[in-house]
Amino acid sequence: MALAMAGIGRAARAAARALALASAEQKDRALDLMAVAVRAQKARILAASAEDLTEARNAGLSAAVIDRLALDDKRVEGIAVAIEAVRALKDPVGVVTESWTRPNGMTIERVRVPLGVIGIIYESRPNVTADAGALCLKSGNAAILRGGSDSTRSSRAIHAAIQQGLREAGLPEAAIQLVPTRDRAAVGMMLTGLDGNIDVIVPRGGKSLVARVQAEARVPVFAHLEGVVHIYIDKAASLDMARTIVLNAKMRRTGVCGAVETLLVDRAVAATHLKPLVEMLLDAGCEVRGDKDTQAIDSRVKQASEEDWSTEYLDAIISVKVVDGVDAAIAHIEHYGSHHTDAIITADTATAEKFLREVDSAIVLHNASTQFADGGEFGFGAEIGIATGRLHARGPVGAEQLTTFKYRILGSGQTRP
Amino acid sequence: MALAMAGIGRAARAAARALALASAEQKDRALDLMAVAVRAQKARILAASAEDLTEARNAGLSAAVIDRLALDDKRVEGIAVAIEAVRALKDPVGVVTESWTRPNGMTIERVRVPLGVIGIIYESRPNVTADAGALCLKSGNAAILRGGSDSTRSSRAIHAAIQQGLREAGLPEAAIQLVPTRDRAAVGMMLTGLDGNIDVIVPRGGKSLVARVQAEARVPVFAHLEGVVHIYIDKAASLDMARTIVLNAKMRRTGVCGAVETLLVDRAVAATHLKPLVEMLLDAGCEVRGDKDTQAIDSRVKQASEEDWSTEYLDAIISVKVVDGVDAAIAHIEHYGSHHTDAIITADTATAEKFLREVDSAIVLHNASTQFADGGEFGFGAEIGIATGRLHARGPVGAEQLTTFKYRILGSGQTRP
Repeated sequence: MALAMAGIGRAARAAARALALASAEQKDRALDLMAVAVRAQKARILAASAEDLTEARNAGLSAAVIDRLALDDKRVEGIAVAIEAVRALKDPVGVVTESWTRPNGMTIERVRVPLGVIGIIYESRPNVTADAGALCLKSGNAAILRGGSDSTRSSRAIHAAIQQGLREAGLPEAAIQLVPTRDRAAVGMMLTGLDGNIDVIVPRGGKSLVARVQAEARVPVFAHLEGVVHIYIDKAASLDMARTIVLNAKMRRTGVCGAVETLLVDRAVAATHLKPLVEMLLDAGCEVRGDKDTQAIDSRVKQASEEDWSTEYLDAIISVKVVDGVDAAIAHIEHYGSHHTDAIITADTATAEKFLREVDSAIVLHNASTQFADGGEFGFGAEIGIATGRLHARGPVGAEQLTTFKYRILGSGQTRP
Repeated sequence: MALAMAGIGRAARAAARALALASAEQKDRALDLMAVAVRAQKARILAASAEDLTEARNAGLSAAVIDRLALDDKRVEGIAVAIEAVRALKDPVGVVTESWTRPNGMTIERVRVPLGVIGIIYESRPNVTADAGALCLKSGNAAILRGGSDSTRSSRAIHAAIQQGLREAGLPEAAIQLVPTRDRAAVGMMLTGLDGNIDVIVPRGGKSLVARVQAEARVPVFAHLEGVVHIYIDKAASLDMARTIVLNAKMRRTGVCGAVETLLVDRAVAATHLKPLVEMLLDAGCEVRGDKDTQAIDSRVKQASEEDWSTEYLDAIISVKVVDGVDAAIAHIEHYGSHHTDAIITADTATAEKFLREVDSAIVLHNASTQFADGGEFGFGAEIGIATGRLHARGPVGAEQLTTFKYRILGSGQTRP
């Protein structure tokens, strides 16, 4: 198995070199053919999925896991459409992002080039096989995919379609490889970088997977462990805007990492804003866990424990606290937050500026819903995840952030004095 | 000692927060005051250096090490001038590098923010204490410096001056901390990231130091292990330009990482170009180790071994090989090179373009000396080193590459559909 994995690493590195030099047209053609193949092989993919589901039901997996595993006509079509969406993105490779001329006449250009080999470790959702593979290909990177054992057959069927697309476009099949899930040691080997043949690891899944990857990886990781997302309602906040944004940020979808988990309300407007916001949430079916001030508002509010302030519920639950102005809000967020996404609602530009500057999170918002924390909503077209690390990638990781750069120096015989 | 190091890590993290929010003016004032203090404390710094030198001589250290250690009037003035040069750089923090508006009216800005805490591990040169500390400060980062035991006293004296500047400017002294060299376990603790309190490590020194840091670090490292730098003389190269550039790239300074180590000559012009280039190098006092074709040129050419092709001499030695055109040159560089800096000399734009595109190095040059591989020559003003890694920083690492970014979203009440 160690030998097989080493071979996968070497093949990925060789494929990465070919991909880095492939034209945008050739990569796009492969993506087109991948979408065609996914549609053509729908019956095979659905049959594979049915087998995965039978096994999952027999193993007594939860309804939530089974829903994530399940594929149907619509979801297979969704996979093909997602590949086409990646195809439609601008090729980031070869773009000159900066260019300047030195006093001696040399021109220096900074040009985007692919990162190399991306390792993706994911759980139940078989569509990640196509999504992640397509985005890596678009950005000129080779991908080594390690899916969950629950979705072995459906991931393999999707992967077969993807490889057909690569083959038909004349690109190496090793550009997107799928690690056999029966190889239990594979994840550990990927985390150590496969002898220098993986440049970055992206975990896609629950908190325990991300935590393991972050703890054990010896190569850089693009990930976020959790999104303990805050909205601060400043004294200069319009109550109407606060209502609309808070309801959307909490209840539009409670399971996404950009869903708000803690509401902080400026004491200066607690008398006018706290009660309507809390009652709106309660009436919408959201459990509210509050500090003393919030509990005094409505008997349905439960008492928040110390742990609540650093909990990502991913559910219809919110913690609510009254704070003494923007400084206290920032201090709370820096103490309890996860540096993912945080927002302020205020009509006061100076206060907003202070919040945006001082809150040290990947995404900070003024007067907008935290559920915009998403590569699609940023206009990136597709994302491989959201990162809270500070190195290289931060926030939604799209095709552009899967590239690095090199310097090209164009001279006419210059020597250094 | 573990406790002391943990305290240094926590203090650095707290200082990093203050520095990230400090104004450009305050940081520049600290840099001004640091330069003033270095000049004012020159006598103390020179006395400390004299003690270091006595110890080094008694310990029988080499003349080269003693030269790197030694400080005199001119070198102390050089330290002050280098701090002023960093002060003169543009503050990278807060710069909006991209900005776009979404169809729903939200504006998204990408803004530069500091990385956090930089750990710098260096060897003999005491001036790194000031250079690295100043560049970290300019870019809003806290620095934890670990110098060599040879320069303990001079580094400490320079550090005292730097701290005076920080103090007088009202910035925390923990912004630039010096780890006591008597703590032997300190380097190992820094490499594991001091409980999450170091964001990136920069080693400054010889190959063995860099190799140890790259092998053991659990946090990202900005470094290059070596610069096995190539120049390829294409069939369309002007012999005059080739002479001038090769002589400069090899002999201007042989000990810098941008010095050329291997010369590749296109077989198509071997008859006209090889002999003049080889004889020029030999006459300039450079040892030439060649393949059979090169050995046939001049009896002074020694035989290159397989090892020569991947050796960074950092000395007046060069390896020379005749290759079959640009493809063979690229293949040689990819096989034996170190992805640092490589150049082509040619009048053929298409061949140059191919070389620049296909050679996977941090810096690729067309018709210019490889000794331009330097942050100052790029116009960065100062660099903390040159990186060959692919993540975050690549090539000369200046103030800008010591920053990361965050996204600011400016809305007017937008919610996600």
